[in-house]
Amino acid sequence: MDLGMIGLGRMGANMAQRLILGGHRVVGYDPSEAARKGLEDKAGESADSLPALVAKLDAPRALWTMVPAGKITDDTIAALLALLSPGDCIIDGGNSYYKDSLRHAALCAEKKIDFVDAGTSGGIWGLDAGYSLMVGGDAAVVERLRPIFETLAPGASQGWGRVGPVGSGHFTKMIHNGIEYGMMQAYAEGFSILQHKQEFALDLHQVAEIWRFGSVVRSWLLDLSADALGRNPKLDGIAPYVVDSGEGRWTAAEAIDLDVPAPIITQSLIERLRSRDSDSFADKLLAAMRNEFGGHAIKKE
Amino acid sequence: MDLGMIGLGRMGANMAQRLILGGHRVVGYDPSEAARKGLEDKAGESADSLPALVAKLDAPRALWTMVPAGKITDDTIAALLALLSPGDCIIDGGNSYYKDSLRHAALCAEKKIDFVDAGTSGGIWGLDAGYSLMVGGDAAVVERLRPIFETLAPGASQGWGRVGPVGSGHFTKMIHNGIEYGMMQAYAEGFSILQHKQEFALDLHQVAEIWRFGSVVRSWLLDLSADALGRNPKLDGIAPYVVDSGEGRWTAAEAIDLDVPAPIITQSLIERLRSRDSDSFADKLLAAMRNEFGGHAIKKE
Repeated sequence: MDLGMIGLGRMGANMAQRLILGGHRVVGYDPSEAARKGLEDKAGESADSLPALVAKLDAPRALWTMVPAGKITDDTIAALLALLSPGDCIIDGGNSYYKDSLRHAALCAEKKIDFVDAGTSGGIWGLDAGYSLMVGGDAAVVERLRPIFETLAPGASQGWGRVGPVGSGHFTKMIHNGIEYGMMQAYAEGFSILQHKQEFALDLHQVAEIWRFGSVVRSWLLDLSADALGRNPKLDGIAPYVVDSGEGRWTAAEAIDLDVPAPIITQSLIERLRSRDSDSFADKLLAAMRNEFGGHAIKKE
Repeated sequence: MDLGMIGLGRMGANMAQRLILGGHRVVGYDPSEAARKGLEDKAGESADSLPALVAKLDAPRALWTMVPAGKITDDTIAALLALLSPGDCIIDGGNSYYKDSLRHAALCAEKKIDFVDAGTSGGIWGLDAGYSLMVGGDAAVVERLRPIFETLAPGASQGWGRVGPVGSGHFTKMIHNGIEYGMMQAYAEGFSILQHKQEFALDLHQVAEIWRFGSVVRSWLLDLSADALGRNPKLDGIAPYVVDSGEGRWTAAEAIDLDVPAPIITQSLIERLRSRDSDSFADKLLAAMRNEFGGHAIKKE
């Protein structure tokens, strides 16, 4: 079927390519001329503005937004609402907060435009392996978009599904990312202990490779860790500074809202905050308190 | 080659069978007659005592112990030391604490008996998929046992390796299990949040199946979780009570010994302790304190 892809970054460009290889017609929009040119080189069409994109698609249209969550997604959906017709559909494949998606769906409904939130996992490997898609929206709308999901997913009936009403797709993706934080932290701590056990002089890349086959901890994240440790065993040049893009803190807040204890997902987020707190006021105050009550020496800066 | 397998429980029996299918001669010992009979039914030989087992093997012998860590492993190795000859080898494939393995290796060395600690992962699925083996010991000894490891592992050069000197195999397996605690807890918390989000009425088995293909959190533990949720979506009949068999607490203690922060592996252990603390004195005291300072109501038993 025909699809407009808005946002031709690493995710959007690869997804457009996978759809084209699957026989769909993709018209892409991105503010970057190089990104548009990249899509054209891969047999896609492009448009240099949202109005031009919408003009190149026949109603009922399907527009997939693959842009950063927050203001850019908000602005893109607002712009589309001024251009689209009743019966058209917006699919947000980005990492939007599910409460934003509920709001976007309500705005769309006012104009009789369908809205689907498609939580998308797979990263830059998805082009070849396919994307895991957690789809929220009206059943009939999702059914109409089935050919798109079947092509993007690892298999026509594998790795994707309508999980519930609007909002539930991004909700499920948010929890997916919360779990991802915990798994990553578990591996990171384990390898750190191995690395510090100097008497055994362990080869972390070798250990990761052993674990990849037959062990209980085998996973795709372990495959990636093995790859990273193979190329750079001492992780030279990588600062111990870990960014977060929101899904972990949303998961932690959601757990509290629901009165559900999620200590290790929450702690995994906190460890990322900790990694960025290189001049910790709390640590200074702890050192000061030890000095006050016990006369313990303070390490000077 | 010839191998004596001591302990024919779920792990030992399956490993013996995999070795027999791989063309090795296995003589097994277990105090249970049914377990011995089980091995004979699978083309293995058996012995009804350790002396009988040792008598059925030609020197230099290789004896694999696959029995519970702690006293039973201690007693088994002590008994073997009285029966074996210089040049024989004991391989401990159980989940022994690595410091116990260092002690066992020293006892063996006094009698010129080789000792190898082979951390073994794979559970009951290892029969078909092979076992991930983290092997500690002298390089020459491990090399002599290569045919055994190549058959037990998922592939001759896959999923096993000598990671370092004696002790390092069980050390690496201990950390493997620590990581396993963290990964399990991450999934458990994530699915719990999904389950509590009643407005979306999510089908947890469906979500797990979607994630199994193409997602960042795909793993063998997720495959098992999907299987469990498919057979029993509400986990009926399963008490919220989680046992630990030691490796998590050893990992937490090791991290502290090495001054390595491992908050989520440690917290995953604590969550298991929490699951067994259904009559929490700490929670009662917290409720009492809230009542003391704020007059907040106490929920009566």
